[in-house]
Amino acid sequence: MSLPSSTSIRQAQPHVHDVEDVDVITCKAAVAWGAGQPLVIEQVNVNPPQPMEIRIKVVCTSLCRSDLSAWESQAIFPRIFGHEATGIVESVGEGVNEFTQGDHVLTVFIGECGKCRQCASGKTNICHLLGLHTFFYMGLERRGVMHCDQRTRFSINATGEPVYHYCAVSSFSEYTVVHSGCAVKISSFVPLEKVCLLSCGVAAGLGAAWNIADISNGSSVVIFGLGTVGLSVSQGAKLRGASQIIGVDTNPEKGENAKAFGITEFINPNDSKEPIQQVIKHLTGGGADYSFECIGDTGMVTTALQACCDGWGLTVTLGVPKVKPEITAHYGAFLTGRTLKGSLFGGWKPKTDLPSLVEMYTKKEIQVDEYITHNLPFEDVNKAFNLMREGKCLRCVIHMEN
Amino acid sequence: MSLPSSTSIRQAQPHVHDVEDVDVITCKAAVAWGAGQPLVIEQVNVNPPQPMEIRIKVVCTSLCRSDLSAWESQAIFPRIFGHEATGIVESVGEGVNEFTQGDHVLTVFIGECGKCRQCASGKTNICHLLGLHTFFYMGLERRGVMHCDQRTRFSINATGEPVYHYCAVSSFSEYTVVHSGCAVKISSFVPLEKVCLLSCGVAAGLGAAWNIADISNGSSVVIFGLGTVGLSVSQGAKLRGASQIIGVDTNPEKGENAKAFGITEFINPNDSKEPIQQVIKHLTGGGADYSFECIGDTGMVTTALQACCDGWGLTVTLGVPKVKPEITAHYGAFLTGRTLKGSLFGGWKPKTDLPSLVEMYTKKEIQVDEYITHNLPFEDVNKAFNLMREGKCLRCVIHMEN
Repeated sequence: MSLPSSTSIRQAQPHVHDVEDVDVITCKAAVAWGAGQPLVIEQVNVNPPQPMEIRIKVVCTSLCRSDLSAWESQAIFPRIFGHEATGIVESVGEGVNEFTQGDHVLTVFIGECGKCRQCASGKTNICHLLGLHTFFYMGLERRGVMHCDQRTRFSINATGEPVYHYCAVSSFSEYTVVHSGCAVKISSFVPLEKVCLLSCGVAAGLGAAWNIADISNGSSVVIFGLGTVGLSVSQGAKLRGASQIIGVDTNPEKGENAKAFGITEFINPNDSKEPIQQVIKHLTGGGADYSFECIGDTGMVTTALQACCDGWGLTVTLGVPKVKPEITAHYGAFLTGRTLKGSLFGGWKPKTDLPSLVEMYTKKEIQVDEYITHNLPFEDVNKAFNLMREGKCLRCVIHMEN
Repeated sequence: MSLPSSTSIRQAQPHVHDVEDVDVITCKAAVAWGAGQPLVIEQVNVNPPQPMEIRIKVVCTSLCRSDLSAWESQAIFPRIFGHEATGIVESVGEGVNEFTQGDHVLTVFIGECGKCRQCASGKTNICHLLGLHTFFYMGLERRGVMHCDQRTRFSINATGEPVYHYCAVSSFSEYTVVHSGCAVKISSFVPLEKVCLLSCGVAAGLGAAWNIADISNGSSVVIFGLGTVGLSVSQGAKLRGASQIIGVDTNPEKGENAKAFGITEFINPNDSKEPIQQVIKHLTGGGADYSFECIGDTGMVTTALQACCDGWGLTVTLGVPKVKPEITAHYGAFLTGRTLKGSLFGGWKPKTDLPSLVEMYTKKEIQVDEYITHNLPFEDVNKAFNLMREGKCLRCVIHMEN
């Protein structure tokens, strides 16, 4: 762990919150200046963590499709994307007792405060303080600021111009500041360059299969979209003993390696004259037991419902749509026994559940490494965006230090 | 049981299918000649039951809102409405071993064949042979004909003009023919003038609360639409120990007796400046655990989703919409943890489950009589339609004989 280009950093010790002694760090970050414009590696200032926040030295960060979608479409710039990451705690803000300098962590885009009605219930991962609720309804995410003071911790070193956060993490920076509820402590023996994938994509897919759908042995599953999330749903389905796992993608290359993750049949809708839901009904003898929308296309949610069987067909929507946010479906789909559920981060409560998922990885009970198709140095971060845009990768892991 | 005006009727005996000896019956039926036009009591011919069918002498039939909606909007006439009924088996068609002349039965608008993938699963009441699937996808219901030969069993006695079936039952007739899968044998000691309500409305509401939502003790529930179905959801919720049961209806009279069925708070959306979902969020501390749409308004399904809490809010849609068949909802409602399910006949598998529900009635474990606000002779069938259209009744029971 090399020192950042800050003149005097005294690390915060556990239970000692000498916040004044924690200085601004100046380091490299990949800054997005406009929608779809290549990121620029800039020198940025990273302010000290405020109450209940931690500052993290990012070790590895993989590119998730949500980063790509946000970069292509959102309006708030300059911004630092990236949210699927591992790192090491550099300093902690006032009131943080859970972490200490040197802790290895996974970042998470939804937090777990442990206190709100939702966290206290134990039934859900939709934390009201640090979850999507805050992003959606309070607009913090849209404004790219932190919870406690609704300000950013980043600025361009040369000009002082503020740079905004993304998805509560902003990991395309050598250092970042996150709410302490948006990080999970993990063993220092776990390879950070691998388990960053459990920070979002692989966990999201496995959890959708296990926690949200609760796939049963011998069942039929159809997955729309064979990126890392879709193929992690497939892995989850396979581990639950699903007998038929149909993968659907318009990219023919996605079919090639899909079997390694459990896909038993691959369908490219462009190869079929029949509507895809009809093809699936034929293949499954009347419709699949479970269908998963992993594209982020609300129209495909309707198709996924239609691809499910009458009586108990369950459709799980995981994707965040870029275009039309409204899901539309004929009421008959529900009256004939279908159910529609959403899955945010696979239902995992980050602090409660992720350590056991990391442990499953260390025991080789789940595949993670297999989703990493590329390893890139930080300066090649734009290559990762291009690879994903062209459908040429599953996960590109960006190593902040070479 | 008086004899119909048929010259020679020899009843079919169990296991003896002397079908040729079963004659056409001529009797009175309330025939709908056009959308919204008062029914006309006509002399109709009721043909003998065909293979796997039974002919029933209707004893009592209550008016359900679906009858009203269909009468107001559908295109196929002349037609005999009515589907919530009790009766006595008059004769049986070839292959029917389950029933014999004199059996007391509940009619059911969805059947249970016991053999299709859905019935065989034991997981659902969406029978493929005799269920809504057939109605929706094969269009039998839209054409008002029977399964085995896609013809009607009714005709006008004077002219021979065919008269069409409705909802697999057509109980506004002294005699009707139904598929043997669409009737359930019940004890001859059960009052037929009461339990006809378990043929549809009361069972639909109780089942939605118990089988579909599986309401838990201490939970909060909101019900949109306080007709018989909505108030039966309320009864079901109360029996499950729900601590807050909010009833929503634009008819202020619906609030008066709602407490007798478990409603703890009544809201008339017209009395509030705030959107109803916001009112419910305030009342429930962030949204209800369960919401039920019992109106048949797909726009209200969206509201019901919004009235549920993040994390585990479950919305159940029971209504059949008269106007817009598409349900539309923002994907965020699902990503933040809501689930949307449909409930057709409360998930009850008619033959498997209804006898136990009837038994609960005989043991006074459930309320049924309390939903009966009017008892009318058959010739006053139009009064029942008017009372329901004006929101002046819960259930009007029509007695075929005085």
